Amino acid sequence: MSSSSRLSTEECSARKAFHEEIARQNLVPLWERLAALVTRSPEPAARPIHWRYSTVRASLLNAGRLLTVEEAERRVLILENPGLPGQSQITDSLFSGFQLLMPGERAHAHRHTASALRVFLEGSGAYTAVNGERTKMERGDFVITPGWTWHDHGNDGPDPVIWLDGLDVPIVNLFKTSFSEGSAAQQTEGPPQGDCEARYAAGLLPEGCKAESLSSPLLNYRYGRARESLAALLRNGPIDPCHGVKLRYANPLTGGSAMSTISAAIQLLPSGFRTAPYRSTDGTVFVVIEGHGHSDIGDASFDWAENDVFVAPSWGLGRHHAQNEAVVFSFSDRAAQEKLGLWREQRDT
Amino acid sequence: MSSSSRLSTEECSARKAFHEEIARQNLVPLWERLAALVTRSPEPAARPIHWRYSTVRASLLNAGRLLTVEEAERRVLILENPGLPGQSQITDSLFSGFQLLMPGERAHAHRHTASALRVFLEGSGAYTAVNGERTKMERGDFVITPGWTWHDHGNDGPDPVIWLDGLDVPIVNLFKTSFSEGSAAQQTEGPPQGDCEARYAAGLLPEGCKAESLSSPLLNYRYGRARESLAALLRNGPIDPCHGVKLRYANPLTGGSAMSTISAAIQLLPSGFRTAPYRSTDGTVFVVIEGHGHSDIGDASFDWAENDVFVAPSWGLGRHHAQNEAVVFSFSDRAAQEKLGLWREQRDT
Amino acid sequence: MSSSSRLSTEECSARKAFHEEIARQNLVPLWERLAALVTRSPEPAARPIHWRYSTVRASLLNAGRLLTVEEAERRVLILENPGLPGQSQITDSLFSGFQLLMPGERAHAHRHTASALRVFLEGSGAYTAVNGERTKMERGDFVITPGWTWHDHGNDGPDPVIWLDGLDVPIVNLFKTSFSEGSAAQQTEGPPQGDCEARYAAGLLPEGCKAESLSSPLLNYRYGRARESLAALLRNGPIDPCHGVKLRYANPLTGGSAMSTISAAIQLLPSGFRTAPYRSTDGTVFVVIEGHGHSDIGDASFDWAENDVFVAPSWGLGRHHAQNEAVVFSFSDRAAQEKLGLWREQRDT
Amino acid sequence: MSSSSRLSTEECSARKAFHEEIARQNLVPLWERLAALVTRSPEPAARPIHWRYSTVRASLLNAGRLLTVEEAERRVLILENPGLPGQSQITDSLFSGFQLLMPGERAHAHRHTASALRVFLEGSGAYTAVNGERTKMERGDFVITPGWTWHDHGNDGPDPVIWLDGLDVPIVNLFKTSFSEGSAAQQTEGPPQGDCEARYAAGLLPEGCKAESLSSPLLNYRYGRARESLAALLRNGPIDPCHGVKLRYANPLTGGSAMSTISAAIQLLPSGFRTAPYRSTDGTVFVVIEGHGHSDIGDASFDWAENDVFVAPSWGLGRHHAQNEAVVFSFSDRAAQEKLGLWREQRDT
Repeated sequence: MSSSSRLSTEECSARKAFHEEIARQNLVPLWERLAALVTRSPEPAARPIHWRYSTVRASLLNAGRLLTVEEAERRVLILENPGLPGQSQITDSLFSGFQLLMPGERAHAHRHTASALRVFLEGSGAYTAVNGERTKMERGDFVITPGWTWHDHGNDGPDPVIWLDGLDVPIVNLFKTSFSEGSAAQQTEGPPQGDCEARYAAGLLPEGCKAESLSSPLLNYRYGRARESLAALLRNGPIDPCHGVKLRYANPLTGGSAMSTISAAIQLLPSGFRTAPYRSTDGTVFVVIEGHGHSDIGDASFDWAENDVFVAPSWGLGRHHAQNEAVVFSFSDRAAQEKLGLWREQRDT
Repeated sequence: MSSSSRLSTEECSARKAFHEEIARQNLVPLWERLAALVTRSPEPAARPIHWRYSTVRASLLNAGRLLTVEEAERRVLILENPGLPGQSQITDSLFSGFQLLMPGERAHAHRHTASALRVFLEGSGAYTAVNGERTKMERGDFVITPGWTWHDHGNDGPDPVIWLDGLDVPIVNLFKTSFSEGSAAQQTEGPPQGDCEARYAAGLLPEGCKAESLSSPLLNYRYGRARESLAALLRNGPIDPCHGVKLRYANPLTGGSAMSTISAAIQLLPSGFRTAPYRSTDGTVFVVIEGHGHSDIGDASFDWAENDVFVAPSWGLGRHHAQNEAVVFSFSDRAAQEKLGLWREQRDT
Repeated sequence: MSSSSRLSTEECSARKAFHEEIARQNLVPLWERLAALVTRSPEPAARPIHWRYSTVRASLLNAGRLLTVEEAERRVLILENPGLPGQSQITDSLFSGFQLLMPGERAHAHRHTASALRVFLEGSGAYTAVNGERTKMERGDFVITPGWTWHDHGNDGPDPVIWLDGLDVPIVNLFKTSFSEGSAAQQTEGPPQGDCEARYAAGLLPEGCKAESLSSPLLNYRYGRARESLAALLRNGPIDPCHGVKLRYANPLTGGSAMSTISAAIQLLPSGFRTAPYRSTDGTVFVVIEGHGHSDIGDASFDWAENDVFVAPSWGLGRHHAQNEAVVFSFSDRAAQEKLGLWREQRDT
Repeated sequence: MSSSSRLSTEECSARKAFHEEIARQNLVPLWERLAALVTRSPEPAARPIHWRYSTVRASLLNAGRLLTVEEAERRVLILENPGLPGQSQITDSLFSGFQLLMPGERAHAHRHTASALRVFLEGSGAYTAVNGERTKMERGDFVITPGWTWHDHGNDGPDPVIWLDGLDVPIVNLFKTSFSEGSAAQQTEGPPQGDCEARYAAGLLPEGCKAESLSSPLLNYRYGRARESLAALLRNGPIDPCHGVKLRYANPLTGGSAMSTISAAIQLLPSGFRTAPYRSTDGTVFVVIEGHGHSDIGDASFDWAENDVFVAPSWGLGRHHAQNEAVVFSFSDRAAQEKLGLWREQRDT
């Protein structure tokens, strides 16, 4: 890298003149940019941050009074990382927001290149329909709407319903691959509810079935089943010092991640458990499903409780302490990073 | 191919002399063998055949009186296809037999290159242990012991237990890759019962998990779950004209077949359903789990009932008729054929 | 999307107050952002643009007079797309620049997460060394330095040498996965020159060889061999209406792209050939190796000659006209897009 | 296993009666068969054996006088392993034979499920055409005709031509998947000679190319290129104690073996080199391309020279000694064994 401090005044002005001249040719000297472009270790713009559900929930309900879902298309409050102002991003590569549907509301069908996940948090009677197949969402369920699938939502229950959305919009937009289409209605035709679970969730696959996309054909990974597995593996032991009991949502057609770009996982931290320090390059969004506890992420510290969301940016050292038995859902861009050969982790820090 | 009928006597004796001379050099003229080696279509030695469970069961119980499981290592009656006398094979590439354990009996641990499947048919209190992890077997369960895993069996129940074994022994032996080791005891250490189901059967996979073999990590595919899926897909429709509702047992780490060389499937035929003619190159063993019906396989016809076994050899045209709602398990070498690029099917015959 | 024009003054100010309030909670209403985040079709910031080699070359040689390679670490003029000012990017996801080494110069070894390609354009006696193995670079050669491999360059010839660099720095930085290390020297130990070509470029692979990374083990894809193939396929015909004769650089261990994130290709356009309109989502950098011609990219038009560089941004409709037989090298992020399920093309526009 | 020696006369006759009774039901006691079916280690029927080219060649030329290629369809002398009399096999899973075409002869087109390889040994002016594309065969070339491709051969040269064939007929026949079709003529249409090499042999692949079969699209792997690589890697060193310099023929679309079921390799043994003992489960056919030497395979010993063929059966311990610099081609069923999870090797015996 140039150390311009040692240059004579003459040299400096020669270089300045050169830079101005080549700028007109759309040329820029790498030696002025190299250190910023190629960093020694990851320098995420995203910061560790924490949203309390109680606060966000109040604002969401205010939004419910201010405008209808038709006006909003999707009534979502974006969780915008303060390190990325104006970017609509929760991490350096992902979008996340809380979504609200009031009783009786419908969000019309649309589709887009971006893939979306939902973690269902509150209320009853809500559904998501993907390519016409409805799935009822219950607390803790992990629901996916793969890229370019038509999807709509509805609330047939008596109370507001709230879930967390996660999307790979910043990845789609970096690559400039965004397409979208909207509809003025909901989908009315498709397979019966539960069809994909009968087909793909029992350890069997339909005769002749082939993986035709990079996303799982399962729309809903039920919390009940995941919770039972976590409990069984806690009993069976041993557990991982960095992660407790941790399982990843998988595509039954490939064994890969359920979504093309986003990895999702769920982990159980036993009551009183303190994790060993851990970091990885995939900036991660955590959503607390059960329990309360405390996390240190880099220099930040958070006390969290049910439905809270917090973020560990890329390469941020994380330690977690569960004050009672806790279950935490998380998602990140690890699936994309692994496919591109970019992912790293460090356990012994 | 030579049409030797047109040869003069002189030519014939010259050829005969030539053949005798080259035979001493371990050389053989291809033109005498080509038609037999490279057939126009598959010519299986195996024949369509049917075993009635009631008959086999009586013989099995006789075997239980004649010798102990220690004497037998495994008390199995081989289902030997009459087209392959002395070959210990049910099809041209697979082994199958019924296995009996009397109350309190144990079959000691051994391991071998060949992969085995079990379809559990009768009794309660039986288990298989694979690399020390036990799984309780119930009617209709599909249990696997992948190649080179230690496995033993036991019957802790009050009655005889019977299951069907399927192995790829003829494939292992064609390739001359057979290794085996025995033990004088059962395995005593391993993961707790149900561990693999908590880890792999809920649509999630353990953090950091990688496929390290070509076999499924799931030891037992429960009949209850498969049966529920079949029922749901029958309700949801439509069903396949050749297969009814048919699902294949899958490896959750890859989406491929549960076993490296053997494909296993389960299908439901609605009451009164007649399948359209179908054939494929994988000689297939069918085991009736529920219902009764009738099958035409090539020129043979069978009336079958619960626990009966019947065989469709390679390229044998099959049609099935379920007299009441039937569930049929089946296995074949299709997984191996597909990996080697050899598998064909024909639906519109 | 909200159509705020229909709102009363009161409603407007209520919403404004709401937005301000939630901004303090790091919450942003999606309905203000949705249209910008999820576009109907790709909206690249990058513009179609063209660099004339003669102009860039003069500036490069000026740079060679202004500072040493030690000062610069790499003496590169970045081709900065005017649609992405200050971003050091040639497309929305890639970096590119021209690199100069004066006679006798050495660029010290460093390594980084980003993967780099070189297209060698001018001079003789230059080499790149990757993990200690040197490869001599000749005009038109496509040379790769996979992510996290040590690499250095040198010019042992009598004249300046110039090549084009392409890197996936913006992708690495979106995902915040950048690591790097530098060295004060060149690599001195490694396999003999040409070793990787003997091992991997003859249609054979070393006994026991396994793909251990996502990048090709071949460091240099010689222009001579590619050129012969193009010529043969032109003779053999037919040729593609959109692409002429087009071949992609492949990883002999997998058949996938030579680089993890970047696809590279080379195509021959016969003299007088006009391509049919074509577009795809991978913003593409073209480098002219032979011939001259004309391209229309979206609304822009360029007359190009040898060593010129021009850019087709994502989804920009391109048509090319070769005035004499032309050979054009190109690279884009298609490899990454395909792995993530994002890539689209359109031929019949 | 039953040790029937300890049984009383009464027990023996009871068992005998039982065996006779169940035989009528097509049932056989496993305990009489287990030791033969599941061996402790591989027990190939094939024996180590050696064919001298000079002897086989004389017989081949006699065959050339005895009958025309039209009569024979293919004028091949099968190398039949004396351990497998009447089986037309050189190893437990492969077929091999020498094929002769006299000047001007044509072998008509046919196709079959079995895959074939040719190692060209003697003569000039011979070609193989695969799906209409001709390739000229020269000494040492490795030519493939993938399963179910039309192929014919011709000799346009002045002298007899001879090559070695290798086929997976026994594998195809174990699985009962054999189909074949013949033609009364040669193929007349297809891509120009050398087309596949331009497309697939230069480290590039055609735009949009996808692997559609399990076989390589390259019909001919030229000896000249392989020989150069072997020489370079001998210079570069180090060499493997068991194999010398050994390279495997690869499918450029996948990095896997060139053929679906058969692995082929070529190795150089420096003058005077003695390999360390090695064995593997893939019974292997060796063909000497250059040099002479000596091999010990199990208890057998052979002195070999150019064009000789010798066999190492499964798990047979092999040691080779090259008396001058030797190049040896080899093929085996390793590709199939690896796909099925059956392959093992042992280097430190």
